[in-house]
Parts: sequence; structure tokens; C-alpha cells
Amino acid sequence: MPAPHTDAIAWGPDGSVRVLDQTALPAEVRWLTITSVEAMIEAIRSLRVRGAPLIGIAAAMGLAAEAARLVAEARAPQPSPHNWPTGEWLEAACRRLAAARPTAVNLRHAIERMQRAGLEAMRSGAAGPDLAQRLRTEAQAIWDGDAAMCQAIGEYGQALIGPGARILTHCNTGMLATGGIGTALGVVYLAHQRGRAVSVIATETRPLGQGARLTAWELTRAGIPCRVIVDGAAAWMMARREVDVVIVGADRIAANGDVANKIGTYGLALLARAHGIPFYVAAPRSTFDLASPSGEAIPIEERPASEIAGGLEGLSAFNPAFDVTPGALVTAIVTDQGVLRPPYGPSIAALGR
Amino acid sequence: MPAPHTDAIAWGPDGSVRVLDQTALPAEVRWLTITSVEAMIEAIRSLRVRGAPLIGIAAAMGLAAEAARLVAEARAPQPSPHNWPTGEWLEAACRRLAAARPTAVNLRHAIERMQRAGLEAMRSGAAGPDLAQRLRTEAQAIWDGDAAMCQAIGEYGQALIGPGARILTHCNTGMLATGGIGTALGVVYLAHQRGRAVSVIATETRPLGQGARLTAWELTRAGIPCRVIVDGAAAWMMARREVDVVIVGADRIAANGDVANKIGTYGLALLARAHGIPFYVAAPRSTFDLASPSGEAIPIEERPASEIAGGLEGLSAFNPAFDVTPGALVTAIVTDQGVLRPPYGPSIAALGR
Repeated sequence: MPAPHTDAIAWGPDGSVRVLDQTALPAEVRWLTITSVEAMIEAIRSLRVRGAPLIGIAAAMGLAAEAARLVAEARAPQPSPHNWPTGEWLEAACRRLAAARPTAVNLRHAIERMQRAGLEAMRSGAAGPDLAQRLRTEAQAIWDGDAAMCQAIGEYGQALIGPGARILTHCNTGMLATGGIGTALGVVYLAHQRGRAVSVIATETRPLGQGARLTAWELTRAGIPCRVIVDGAAAWMMARREVDVVIVGADRIAANGDVANKIGTYGLALLARAHGIPFYVAAPRSTFDLASPSGEAIPIEERPASEIAGGLEGLSAFNPAFDVTPGALVTAIVTDQGVLRPPYGPSIAALGR
Repeated sequence: MPAPHTDAIAWGPDGSVRVLDQTALPAEVRWLTITSVEAMIEAIRSLRVRGAPLIGIAAAMGLAAEAARLVAEARAPQPSPHNWPTGEWLEAACRRLAAARPTAVNLRHAIERMQRAGLEAMRSGAAGPDLAQRLRTEAQAIWDGDAAMCQAIGEYGQALIGPGARILTHCNTGMLATGGIGTALGVVYLAHQRGRAVSVIATETRPLGQGARLTAWELTRAGIPCRVIVDGAAAWMMARREVDVVIVGADRIAANGDVANKIGTYGLALLARAHGIPFYVAAPRSTFDLASPSGEAIPIEERPASEIAGGLEGLSAFNPAFDVTPGALVTAIVTDQGVLRPPYGPSIAALGR
């Protein structure tokens, strides 16, 4: 049985990609149809599609969609002058997509796979519709692979979740963030499915409220009990003994186990440590970056001050999208290949690709 | 020279009270004119006027305003049937005002003073306009006293602030929260006035954004450099060594030094401790509650889920307005009578009233 796939993205007509616009949730379920790399970059930059694994999948699908459109245009009665996917096109498109957001490494990994697949296909003579088809097949394989990895993470994570566990999570790491059932939320979905009576405390996750808007929406849809708190209330919930375990996702994990994830994660890890609560990170292989020896090598995206509420004109703000949690604060990392325990260096180096 | 007074509240015509509606800031500077206890309770409950010391002052002024109106109505050509301030009126009004919000103890202290002053005046024969005048005088004395306490806190706090200090603060504790220059922000204002080149990192302070909306507005108006961060970014700022000191206010301090303050304060104290950064609380005498032996005795107000963004219908949330920071995490408490150091029990017991 194939692993469940997210319904936050889909193939559209004529090789296009349909993307659920997450900036409109939960007020509105609005779909975008994307037929170009530029439109996908816009959707990624403006967080219409977000979540480290889903960004990689969406970028790969966006590349395939543009290839399909170029092929269609070249076949049309009045062919476009710049069409037919070429090696130059592939290289430029991949470069632009990979730079859409800097922190999540899944994006770079997905685009590298797409570029490799395209170049290999061209080398063996594929062109036009064959090349476009090859890119679509590769994008689908990346998506399928991520869904399978989510399922495996969920399975491995069950060992860490006791019956009735009250699970605190940050940001959104579910169906809206991945190609499958999610990473941290994947563990929650499977525990719920198996009748383990878990409940979730979702941090609001400022500045963009992905916890209050997206995680609460997903879990409510699935019938999983969920309470939202402001980010600042996490420590107080821990002091009140209302949190049994913290599980978060990751945007990039360095070779030593340092974890870049949504801003606020590092603070949660410190607070969990201070209260003796286990702090787990759930992520697929594609989130690990052996080229980053430690968290210091991970670029941290800074976003505009305007995302921070206030309405004060000329408000000066510092708005990093991510922070880095030292591996030493992470109790375990749940991957699709098993649960890693510190010290992380050797087990991360041994992860299959 | 009298201590500077806040300009967030004022006496209006005919004994009324004018209150700056803080829910409209920073978009709009809107004033409310209040002539009744009920209207003041509404303004306090809906956070149009907020900040532990300012709530106490506003409640006292609201009581005086209603007394003035009752006197005026009784003198009018067609006297109202229920007029003329009576002992029963005083008792009921004080009871209702004191219950407007549960956590800040300054409110209770201010109302106790008002009730005592009113009863004493009645016992010595005062009635009607004389009684109303006595209540107004007492409310003004509470306000003047708070302004003087802010100034003293600011002075004592200077010893804790090095030149060029980068000060992280939470919520709003300035002119918009007190009768004077503020508590934690009072320390900042005086340091700035004296050319000590301080700058402020203001947490946004969810759910209502009093940091991003109010602290940023106040400090910008005063020309003090200020950057806003989301609450979740505080730990990351500390890890980046961008925070030299944390100073916050308090809504109630128990006899053992436990501090109830805006939700998120406890987490900041733990994070400051983890990074070796001093964590100071600034508060006047009126914030100490010797009747609460420890933080466990302090009632914590819970506010509606609708204050947490998301827009999801039926969103389940836990929205405490405050948390309690154990005194053991507080490096020092800056009061208007000097700087207290742990253990706090004896020095709090010795505080003058």
C-alpha cells in the first residue's frame, strides 16, 4: 500500500501544478494553478507553499510544469520563439528555484535530483516531450519518496510517544508541510490512528501563525484534540506539567546534529531541557546536510519587518525565519531510517541517501 | 521638581477622566471620556487602559469621576433619584472595580486606598461635593505617588545598566503602563536621558502585541533606538549575544519574590539564565502582595481564545494573560526604595508601605 500523500499539492491539467494557497488558510481554501518556474518561486517566497519537504516537491513539480508548457508552446500552431527545454534552460531554472529560499536544504536536494535527471535524459538523447516527461516522473518520484519517508518517520516515532501523550509542537509539520502525513505531525497522525489518545498543544508560531492557522486546521480536520497557545506560553505550560513531550520538524540538520528550524525552536529546546521534557526532531533524509559541519554553516533567512504586527510606520524589527538548536539539546532525531541518539555525528554520517 | 506624569490619562471636564484608548494604538490616537465606574471597568477589561500601575490609577480616577457625576446630577434642576455618593455606593463601586482584572494587585491596593479615604471622609462628616473632592484628591495622590515611584525606580535602576546596554524587554511598562515614566522602561528612559546610548529589543508580546504596538510607539516617540522581535526570537537573540540585560515589569510580586507578569516572562527568565544574562524585574511598592506567600497564591487571568490569531472557527486555545517566574530566576528587583537581591523574603517584608 503506498504511503498517504498530502492533498496540499496536485498535478493540474496539461502538466500544470495546483497548489493550495496556505496564506489564505484557514479562512479560505484557495487553489493556484502554476505553469512556470517564476510563479512557483513566487509561491514559495510568499509562503503560499511552505514546509521544508513540500517546498522541495513543489519546486520539482514547478520545473516539470514549465517544461510541459514549453513543449506545448513549441507544438502550438504559432510556436513561441524561446521554447523547447534546453540544457541552458534547465540549468538557469534550477539555479533560480534553488535560491527561492535559503535555509531549507530539501529544496536544494530536490533541485539537484531534477537537474541530474534532466541532464542524464538529455545525454541519452531525450528532448522535447520525452525530457518533459522524464522531469515529471522525477518530480513524482521525489513526492512519492517523501510520502514514504513521512510514513516511516511516523512509524519510528511511535516508540517515543506514550499513551495519552500531550505533545507540544511548533509551526506546521504535517500534510501542509510535506508530501505525506508529515514529519513531527506524522508521528501524531499515526499515534492517533492507532488509538493512543494523544493530544496536541500547538504554538501559534509567530510571525505568520503557521501553528494557529495550519496545524490547528489540519488536526481539527483529522479529529485530533488540539489547543493553541501563544509562543510565550510554552514555558508556563511546561511548568504546569501539561506537556509530556516536544516534537518539531527541521528545515536543515547539520552533520553534527544542529537543527535549523522555525524561529522559536531553540527556545523551546532550552525550556524543555529546563523542565526535563524530551525534545525530539523529526525529519527525512533530505533534511540532512552533510556539507554543513555545524549550525554555524547554515544560512538563516531574514524576512521583512512588515510581517511583525504593529502597524507602526517605519517599525524597526529583526525578523529571522529560523534559529539553530544545538544537537546537544535534542533528545533524539526521528528519521525515516530510524531514531538517532546523540552523539549525532556518526549516525548522521551513516544515513543512507 | 515633580516626577514626570504619564500623558496616557488625564482629568476631563466636570470631573470626568480621559483615557487614551490603547487598543487603537499605534494606528490611531483616540481618547475616551469616562464618567462612570461601569465605563472604566469596560475600559480596563478590554485593555483600553492597561499596565498594572496605570490600571490602579485609572480605577481610582474612575471612582472619583462617578462621584463627581453623582454630585452634579443631584444638584441639577431635576435631581436623579439615586444620587449623592453614599457608603453603600462606595462599597459596591469599589468591589466592582477591584474585580475588573484579577492578577495585578496594584488595582486592589489603589481601590483599598480610595475606599479608606472615602470612609474616613464620611466618618468626619464629609458628604456630596466634599466627599467627591476627597476622592479626587486621593486618586490624584495615587497617581502622583506612582509617578514618583517610577522616577525612583528609574534612578535605582541606573546601577544595573552599563553604557551602550542592549536591553530586552517584554510587553509595555512605560508611560502607557504607569502614572509616570514607567517601571522597566523608566530605567530605559533615564539611561537614555543621561546619554548612556542604550537600545531596546522589544518582544512583540502576543497575543495583543503590547510590545510591537505600545513599547515601539513610546520609544520611537522618545527617540530611543528600538527593534521589535517575535517572542520566539528572544532565545536566538541571546545566543547571538545581542542581549546584555533583560528588564521586565510585574503585575504582582509575592512575599517570596515570585513574579506574576505578562505571559512569556517566565520563559524569558529561564532563557536569560541559560545564557548567563541578568534578568531584572522593576516594580513599585504597590505591586508587592505580602498576602500572597508565593506565586501559587496569585490568580492567573485567562483570556478568550479569540485573542489568538487564526480565524479558525471553534479554535480551541489556552490563553493565560500572565505566568509566574520563581524569584530564584530573578537577578534583582528594582523598586522605588532600592534594588532588592535574593533571597527576597526578608527585603520584601521590610519594604515600606
